[in-house]
Amino acid sequence: MGSAMARRLLQAGHRVTVYNRTATRAEPLVAEGAVLAASPARAADNEAVITMLADDPAVEVLVCGKDGVADGLPRGATHLTTSTMSVALTDRLTDLHVAKGQIHVSAPVLGRPPAAAAGELFVMAAGAPTEVERMRPVLNAFGQRVFVIGTRPSQANLLKLCANFLIYSTVEQLGEVFALVEKGDIDRAVALQMLTESFFNAPVHKNYGQLILERNFDPPGANVVLGAKDIRLVLQAGQDLSVPLPFASIVRDRFLASIARGESDLDFTAIARRAAEDGGLKT
Amino acid sequence: MGSAMARRLLQAGHRVTVYNRTATRAEPLVAEGAVLAASPARAADNEAVITMLADDPAVEVLVCGKDGVADGLPRGATHLTTSTMSVALTDRLTDLHVAKGQIHVSAPVLGRPPAAAAGELFVMAAGAPTEVERMRPVLNAFGQRVFVIGTRPSQANLLKLCANFLIYSTVEQLGEVFALVEKGDIDRAVALQMLTESFFNAPVHKNYGQLILERNFDPPGANVVLGAKDIRLVLQAGQDLSVPLPFASIVRDRFLASIARGESDLDFTAIARRAAEDGGLKT
Amino acid sequence: MGSAMARRLLQAGHRVTVYNRTATRAEPLVAEGAVLAASPARAADNEAVITMLADDPAVEVLVCGKDGVADGLPRGATHLTTSTMSVALTDRLTDLHVAKGQIHVSAPVLGRPPAAAAGELFVMAAGAPTEVERMRPVLNAFGQRVFVIGTRPSQANLLKLCANFLIYSTVEQLGEVFALVEKGDIDRAVALQMLTESFFNAPVHKNYGQLILERNFDPPGANVVLGAKDIRLVLQAGQDLSVPLPFASIVRDRFLASIARGESDLDFTAIARRAAEDGGLKT
Amino acid sequence: MGSAMARRLLQAGHRVTVYNRTATRAEPLVAEGAVLAASPARAADNEAVITMLADDPAVEVLVCGKDGVADGLPRGATHLTTSTMSVALTDRLTDLHVAKGQIHVSAPVLGRPPAAAAGELFVMAAGAPTEVERMRPVLNAFGQRVFVIGTRPSQANLLKLCANFLIYSTVEQLGEVFALVEKGDIDRAVALQMLTESFFNAPVHKNYGQLILERNFDPPGANVVLGAKDIRLVLQAGQDLSVPLPFASIVRDRFLASIARGESDLDFTAIARRAAEDGGLKT
Repeated sequence: MGSAMARRLLQAGHRVTVYNRTATRAEPLVAEGAVLAASPARAADNEAVITMLADDPAVEVLVCGKDGVADGLPRGATHLTTSTMSVALTDRLTDLHVAKGQIHVSAPVLGRPPAAAAGELFVMAAGAPTEVERMRPVLNAFGQRVFVIGTRPSQANLLKLCANFLIYSTVEQLGEVFALVEKGDIDRAVALQMLTESFFNAPVHKNYGQLILERNFDPPGANVVLGAKDIRLVLQAGQDLSVPLPFASIVRDRFLASIARGESDLDFTAIARRAAEDGGLKT
Repeated sequence: MGSAMARRLLQAGHRVTVYNRTATRAEPLVAEGAVLAASPARAADNEAVITMLADDPAVEVLVCGKDGVADGLPRGATHLTTSTMSVALTDRLTDLHVAKGQIHVSAPVLGRPPAAAAGELFVMAAGAPTEVERMRPVLNAFGQRVFVIGTRPSQANLLKLCANFLIYSTVEQLGEVFALVEKGDIDRAVALQMLTESFFNAPVHKNYGQLILERNFDPPGANVVLGAKDIRLVLQAGQDLSVPLPFASIVRDRFLASIARGESDLDFTAIARRAAEDGGLKT
Repeated sequence: MGSAMARRLLQAGHRVTVYNRTATRAEPLVAEGAVLAASPARAADNEAVITMLADDPAVEVLVCGKDGVADGLPRGATHLTTSTMSVALTDRLTDLHVAKGQIHVSAPVLGRPPAAAAGELFVMAAGAPTEVERMRPVLNAFGQRVFVIGTRPSQANLLKLCANFLIYSTVEQLGEVFALVEKGDIDRAVALQMLTESFFNAPVHKNYGQLILERNFDPPGANVVLGAKDIRLVLQAGQDLSVPLPFASIVRDRFLASIARGESDLDFTAIARRAAEDGGLKT
Repeated sequence: MGSAMARRLLQAGHRVTVYNRTATRAEPLVAEGAVLAASPARAADNEAVITMLADDPAVEVLVCGKDGVADGLPRGATHLTTSTMSVALTDRLTDLHVAKGQIHVSAPVLGRPPAAAAGELFVMAAGAPTEVERMRPVLNAFGQRVFVIGTRPSQANLLKLCANFLIYSTVEQLGEVFALVEKGDIDRAVALQMLTESFFNAPVHKNYGQLILERNFDPPGANVVLGAKDIRLVLQAGQDLSVPLPFASIVRDRFLASIARGESDLDFTAIARRAAEDGGLKT
């Protein structure tokens, strides 16, 4: 995902410095004009630095660790975080950057790497309004739409977690429907067509419905472990804000059961198997 | 709903006989050319009869009762059921009609009365293929699309219940999301716009999301009691087919809590209040 | 169960007339002094009649059907219902008996057949206070304790359903605990001993905990289908009174999943397998 | 709790050194013969040190922080942890002590301070068998029973979390039952008596049932925040071991809703209000 975003920036004419723990991963970008930095701190020694990482621990090490982003970023420069990370960590990064006289804008994205490569991500941005505006040319490079969510960076992350929750809970909805129609001897493809050509015609219904229909779980787009991580962050946000989320709890249990059954490396839509199994169906 | 459907048939040039327990309700249709029947049996004494009723007991009385549809329908004629009724009752009607040499086609519809009036319902049809085809001109009169679901009439009803389950569980999804974003100080309208202009842009998201956003629960489109009835039928179908449906159980509890709090006559989207209340928000 | 109760009455010196759809089943009781009746109506033609049946439909046929209990019971005589049946049916029977000038006392029991044979059941009685008192010698014949619950017969049934709900939900509690300790490499027997010799030392913990520990599901004491019926009645009562019961919904799903997996004839404690399976354990 | 345990040790003739962040809290114990230490490290500079603290962060600071227990404990000496803390932290402490040549025995306890004062706690002990045995005189000073759970210290903590889960989920069971019987016009006291004098007569039923019956939530024995913390640790253990715990998720939501409604400082049995409220009852 990070590569695709960096490439979009190069294509848009920005000067881009890149860093990856595995330097060889950055080679194609260097061939396209990017400069390779020796450390996160060096990469951050610019007008702005963008991070795109897998999870909270990766962000924390790279930003707060030795030779990390926070060490290298100049006063007045901007850290644009785009990872799906926790609200709590986002707030801690904001505090850290404020303390160092740096700017923090958060802009997590909705979409998979091919959408990034095509500049078709949906971007949720939050931070000080003038700073968000200053980042807009960057965000437009990989996003088809930029939605401004609020003035506290972590608000964008909270909404991003909500979007992911909607994705996972839609998979559960469809899993329950598929189990019911299959036991009622209805052709699942007929059922999905009817639903996705009437009231339920969003990408979230069509794309994931098709994967579940085809039981197309391997190789994964995003795997079960990643989904389990996301839903944990959703529930963590709910806990920190004292908001019970019963659907999220059920989805969490589906992910845990999938991991317990050895499906960690399948596509996350494999959690739809659980409703089928509970109904006594082969999966 | 029945009026709107009958009017579409008249407009399409069909001869239409109508019956309503409250005869005055049928007067506008009579003014437009329909013939008023004195009983369901008389209304059924035709090539085909269509029933559109609120719930199982209403269907059972009107079809199986004295001077009911089953009494009046000639051998070889067709009963087209369009109500959202239980799989079990649909199966019993099929058996009854078979025993009497009558035809049963089931064709529940997705959409509200204005869609019926505009001929824009989505129709799920099931029954013997030749009989479903024979009904197609009728179905086309009020439906923008006719999906053929299977050969057993009740299969259409099972899928219709699944569609309603998707509607109600989407309301719960959005209710949880709204509670979370509101406690996170995000403008709910901003959140809804972002979601419905990216991956979650189906009518089910937009229409019900807007009602929840505006807390526009009175007067109801369809009320809480009707929703509670539907989700009960979904769970009943799950029970009869031995399929656990955890999301449906949660939605059922939301409906029961709404009824217990005196919200029976509000729009069913009022169940989104429950997630907000559990999060300590004013609703 | 009915036999054991009748035998206790004979042993206490009561005159007893018996009826069973399968007459041979009543033979041992006849050998012990009971009189065999040819129909429920004949059996009911006495000062009082006691019914103990498996479920609502069995009660309805035997009481309200042709030559049923309600036909034979004299005015002023008492129908003592002891089955675990629905609140709704119990209310209907009360209305029926009132209309016929008969008395209705409800007295469902807690305990299995051996407890009945030993006179050690726990009895929940409800009805008009003087009528409940008049039945006390009968209730004392098979019960170690008689608790008077209320003046409306169905109140006893509601509490009986609550007791059964506590049993089934305790099985789920223990199932979750066993799954967790087993995956934590704790000896399940050690865990059960610790729990049942400290705060959790009720019969409901000890008896069912032991069955789950030993995976002793066959032959059943009471089977999965019976448990599924009970929990359905609990949820039905919750629906009629508008009370959401989230634990009951989860237990219902466990029963449905057990039925879907072919475990209908196992002891109902087999639903504890579900938590283990969800945790990836062999069961 | 810690005071009561220390007093029992003094009474049993042990030499006791005490430490509390608020030194005045330790004064009564000093008056009874204990020696006051100036830091956790000083308190730990003995044959064995016992810690009893509120939560994971408190343990972590006191054990691993500067002048902490781990700094002061001699090689070969034993750290006996008795707090209800996470499995993960317990494992980390074990690793830490092993690395320093120290012994770690874990022995969380079931019971409230008065039980500790009377020497009537239930103790769950885990660790190397010889080390657990060497601690037995200490454990016997405040425990009526010592159960040996396993050889890995954290196993005792996992079982302790299970016991707490059983307590909280029993409160939810009873809350649902009370809501149902109250709406069925049954006297709640009658219902509780019947249940706790038949199959459901464990301390967990009687003690907490009484508190819920009397709506006796203030002052708290242990408050809602503490319960919320415990159930979070249970779910965390379930996540780390990949075991879905649907009852625990529901209980978690009850705690969050109670916190959201401003009930943080009430007794944790106040979560029984949620089922009542969902049923439309005053609480």
